Amino acid sequence: MHTVLILSRHARDYRALVEAAHLPDLEIVATSEPSEAMANAASFDLAFGEPSLLRHVVPSMTALRWVQATWAGVEPLLDPALHRDYTLTNARGVFGEQMSEYVFAYVLAHERKIFARDASQRAGRWDPEPPTRLRGKRIGLLGVGTIGAALACTAKHFGMRVKGYTRASEGCADVDEYFHGPLTDVSALFGSDLDYLVSVMPDTSQTRHLVDAALLLALPPRCVFINPGRGGVVDEMALAAALHDGRLAGAVLDVFDTEPLPADHIFWRLPNVRITSHTAALSAPPDIAPLFIDNYRRLVRGEPLMYRVDFERGY
Amino acid sequence: MHTVLILSRHARDYRALVEAAHLPDLEIVATSEPSEAMANAASFDLAFGEPSLLRHVVPSMTALRWVQATWAGVEPLLDPALHRDYTLTNARGVFGEQMSEYVFAYVLAHERKIFARDASQRAGRWDPEPPTRLRGKRIGLLGVGTIGAALACTAKHFGMRVKGYTRASEGCADVDEYFHGPLTDVSALFGSDLDYLVSVMPDTSQTRHLVDAALLLALPPRCVFINPGRGGVVDEMALAAALHDGRLAGAVLDVFDTEPLPADHIFWRLPNVRITSHTAALSAPPDIAPLFIDNYRRLVRGEPLMYRVDFERGY
Repeated sequence: MHTVLILSRHARDYRALVEAAHLPDLEIVATSEPSEAMANAASFDLAFGEPSLLRHVVPSMTALRWVQATWAGVEPLLDPALHRDYTLTNARGVFGEQMSEYVFAYVLAHERKIFARDASQRAGRWDPEPPTRLRGKRIGLLGVGTIGAALACTAKHFGMRVKGYTRASEGCADVDEYFHGPLTDVSALFGSDLDYLVSVMPDTSQTRHLVDAALLLALPPRCVFINPGRGGVVDEMALAAALHDGRLAGAVLDVFDTEPLPADHIFWRLPNVRITSHTAALSAPPDIAPLFIDNYRRLVRGEPLMYRVDFERGY
Repeated sequence: MHTVLILSRHARDYRALVEAAHLPDLEIVATSEPSEAMANAASFDLAFGEPSLLRHVVPSMTALRWVQATWAGVEPLLDPALHRDYTLTNARGVFGEQMSEYVFAYVLAHERKIFARDASQRAGRWDPEPPTRLRGKRIGLLGVGTIGAALACTAKHFGMRVKGYTRASEGCADVDEYFHGPLTDVSALFGSDLDYLVSVMPDTSQTRHLVDAALLLALPPRCVFINPGRGGVVDEMALAAALHDGRLAGAVLDVFDTEPLPADHIFWRLPNVRITSHTAALSAPPDIAPLFIDNYRRLVRGEPLMYRVDFERGY
């Protein structure tokens, strides 16, 4: 018999979805309040929920065997002060479509000049300024996991050329050119001809401020930087300086060092920044519940779980 | 020996592109002024250019054998007062990519709420309002020629369901369901579950005001109408009424009965209309010149020309 703690803002939805799967030998306790879970914390061998909520309960979960996170990013559970004697799996393979809709909404908005055209319309002005075209443009992806692969696939659909930066993997056929090694060494090679640079890197000690002044200097002034990944990957002050000085055409930013973005942050005042308030890809219960259900069946059958996180590597 | 009149705003570009093809037995005269072409009009057996310019010279072109239009729409040359004793070919197969970038820029902008998010940003407001998703949504295409097929292909890429309205053809595999017959008969079947309706119909006597009050009534209030095709296909007053009354979520309009759109037109004042000033797909000489070059080679070899227009049908 297993007992799972579902700890999530969507606890009710997740309970309904997991119950509907009729998983064998599973007792379910669901709540959105960490404090409610504390009393019986030692009785749960499994947990499923938001890392930011679970981190409060994990220290008391002495029988913990497996945690399925509802998010891709599991930073709150990587705190070295927390125990790590359980299997941690995250949400993967479910955000690619949303990310692709997000990134290409803004990429196409840029090519079609839709904000400038909107301003013309509000001024009552017929505006036949020609748009530009996506075909043949170059997109660079920092990170080519399942999200990067989805972006590469849409980029190829629109006839773009795709460059991918990864630690070592070269598994996505939609990437035309791969780059590895310290980004400081390859930044000119990787960045100098890009029209768009998209970061979908996880937030780890090794990716912190990977997008720094040196990388931004390597990009051409026509380039637009898009970050639907993690805020910590970007040196925000270096990015603000590049945008302010016109060394970058623009930035579309979903994630930040501090969220909500503080009211006095310079990004609010830069006209070539688009702020999308951490909405790029949401963890929708109908997408995420199947990850827990599938992994639970693997657990019961004694098979390895999918999407295991390496605590040291951070993803 | 043949003599072609290139009559176009881009006469110089077209001359350079045609010359570079080293076509046999061809003399080229290129100008952007119809008046300059009038003196020798009878000496040209071929013409290549914008229908709106060519219409002034065609009546004097007594030796005319073939006209290659640089546009898809050839309405100016269909005036029954003009002679029709020549072969008319139009530009086809070259606008699909631009149209796809245009339509999906605005479709994705709608799903991702990018104008509302822009307004939030200008107010300095963190706006975590969730976006909606394109996957599973339904798009209806009025017309499935090469442009409609390109739109259907992109719609499938994003996981949409595609309905196509055509006179008879069912050649595009990306269309899930076809509808034919008078639109008055099938409008409920075709329109009632659409999230997006896109018109890429040619402007002919049979398509005039095809998008009328009855069709608009069949659409659900969540539907967005997009017209990158021809203005005459739409009953503008019926569309304005539907938008004003909230019976449609919005409209993205590239083409109009009168262009530029008159300053006092109600479309300027409707908040759920996007006006894009006839920029959806432009005739770029590097795309269009190959159509003339390929057809000229066919002419010389005695083969049938591509993309022949039926003067009666109008496309």
